Amino acid sequence: MLVTIPGKSDITNTLDRISPYIHNTPILTSTLLNSMFNCSMFFKCENFQKAGSFKSRGAVNAILGLSESELRAGVGTHSSGNFAQALARAAGMLNVPAHIVMPENAPKVKVNAVKQYGGKITFCKPTLAAREEALEQILSQTGAKEIHPYDNYDIIAGQSTATLELCREITDLDIILCPIGGGGLISGTALSAFYFGNNIEVIACEPAGADDAYRSMLAGRIIPSVDPNTIADGLLTSLGERNFPIIKKYVSKIVTVNEDSIISAMKLIYERLKIVIEPSSAVPLAAIIENKIELTDKNVGIIISGGNIDLAGIPF
Amino acid sequence: MLVTIPGKSDITNTLDRISPYIHNTPILTSTLLNSMFNCSMFFKCENFQKAGSFKSRGAVNAILGLSESELRAGVGTHSSGNFAQALARAAGMLNVPAHIVMPENAPKVKVNAVKQYGGKITFCKPTLAAREEALEQILSQTGAKEIHPYDNYDIIAGQSTATLELCREITDLDIILCPIGGGGLISGTALSAFYFGNNIEVIACEPAGADDAYRSMLAGRIIPSVDPNTIADGLLTSLGERNFPIIKKYVSKIVTVNEDSIISAMKLIYERLKIVIEPSSAVPLAAIIENKIELTDKNVGIIISGGNIDLAGIPF
Repeated sequence: MLVTIPGKSDITNTLDRISPYIHNTPILTSTLLNSMFNCSMFFKCENFQKAGSFKSRGAVNAILGLSESELRAGVGTHSSGNFAQALARAAGMLNVPAHIVMPENAPKVKVNAVKQYGGKITFCKPTLAAREEALEQILSQTGAKEIHPYDNYDIIAGQSTATLELCREITDLDIILCPIGGGGLISGTALSAFYFGNNIEVIACEPAGADDAYRSMLAGRIIPSVDPNTIADGLLTSLGERNFPIIKKYVSKIVTVNEDSIISAMKLIYERLKIVIEPSSAVPLAAIIENKIELTDKNVGIIISGGNIDLAGIPF
Repeated sequence: MLVTIPGKSDITNTLDRISPYIHNTPILTSTLLNSMFNCSMFFKCENFQKAGSFKSRGAVNAILGLSESELRAGVGTHSSGNFAQALARAAGMLNVPAHIVMPENAPKVKVNAVKQYGGKITFCKPTLAAREEALEQILSQTGAKEIHPYDNYDIIAGQSTATLELCREITDLDIILCPIGGGGLISGTALSAFYFGNNIEVIACEPAGADDAYRSMLAGRIIPSVDPNTIADGLLTSLGERNFPIIKKYVSKIVTVNEDSIISAMKLIYERLKIVIEPSSAVPLAAIIENKIELTDKNVGIIISGGNIDLAGIPF
């Protein structure tokens, strides 16, 4: 278990350790998108990752970092989204009990996925307080260990492996764009870009309707997300204590985008890359559409974070 | 230019020749789909091919097979679908004029794609007679050479390269499932499975609402498609003269599927493989859903033919 910011060898070791349990996801390109935006874009497609998002990387790593007795007692988390599925899958794979607290209004498709992976679900009222209280109770009853979805160095090391794979395959990236929510993915991305790239600039992309990271960066301290409102439902959370210092040090800036651009970007990705993504994954391309980043003739890595979406809710 | 059924070396030569201009498309798998159907499925994803479908393989090969004088005079075809885009792109790439006859009711998205690739479009009434007449006129005016979308050995050789790639990567396939329309893709698939596989059984999958191939196989002669009715808009055409003998010899059977299964299969592919496909691509998985093929514990190749779809028309 890591107790400090992952170093270069921590990340390569993490990838070696989790590789048998995750996909080295494909990197897609589109001639037409490149010509639209005058750059070369490389989309790292974590929508094809196990359980449908990058979260499987961190979840597998966190489970593999537990001691024998911790494995027996199991793990717990509260999540309505991708981390619930990823942790249930990672735990189920190794026969570790996984206690997942989900709000009673969680989408049925996500509840079913967690069940399919063998997660033990406890429902609660859809407030953060109710979720934390329910989880607290389960942890004390069962002795299970809480795995935080992003404020955890093993999780950060796991998420960083997507960009390690990207940097190994595309060796001359100038910029990487990545969505920012709680900060697990972006902090891992920034670390790997720093260790394994050649002066890669990392830019975090955030919905204007959930711009707590943008405001935190300006203020120099974590400003919690209050009443966020965006279609990018993976990016509603507040920054983690362990994530923020990494972001401050290794991310060059945070840009915000509006909802229309997110939807346009999503549509472009469906039409041109022919892949199914969730709205959060479209936020970096939305920043490009809004012309917020100078990219001309550059090699641009874009992290597609996940593909878990209720198809009936596609906004076009 | 090939004047007879492509042989083994014709196909490897074709792949060498077209490789610089097309994608070696990814092969995707899904643990969940495998466990649902008790087999191992390998999806060859031609939805990621240039211009969005396998048609680019044949189109590029046909263009590369032309003489200097033919290249100057250009090429022509009538198509409302994927072949129009693929031929316009292949011709545009080599600065060859491409005359495309399209019905006046062709979807705008397809018309725009053909224009983007530099195709010269002539609109006509939406009947086969009007299309053939308009094309005939253009060919006689311009001296352009007609490239048939499937009844052409260079096209068949081009389409066969998808399965050559598949057999090189997955060396122990037992079965390949492939949609059947005019017969270009399935005849190429069957030839490559025969030459490069180890006793692979090839099964063609067809919508019951456009079952001319099924009926042709029973009758032992080509029975034209009359008033076909299916969501799988790439599979409306009648079998070609050059395709049918190959199908009779190398395809073990043709199975038909209903529309509900096609839509269910399409949804499963969007949800589980996270890829955007057109309805025709879902027809093989529909046959599996209908339990029409014995697959238990087998390694099953599935050709995903293309991903060109108007997103507003997704039926779920």
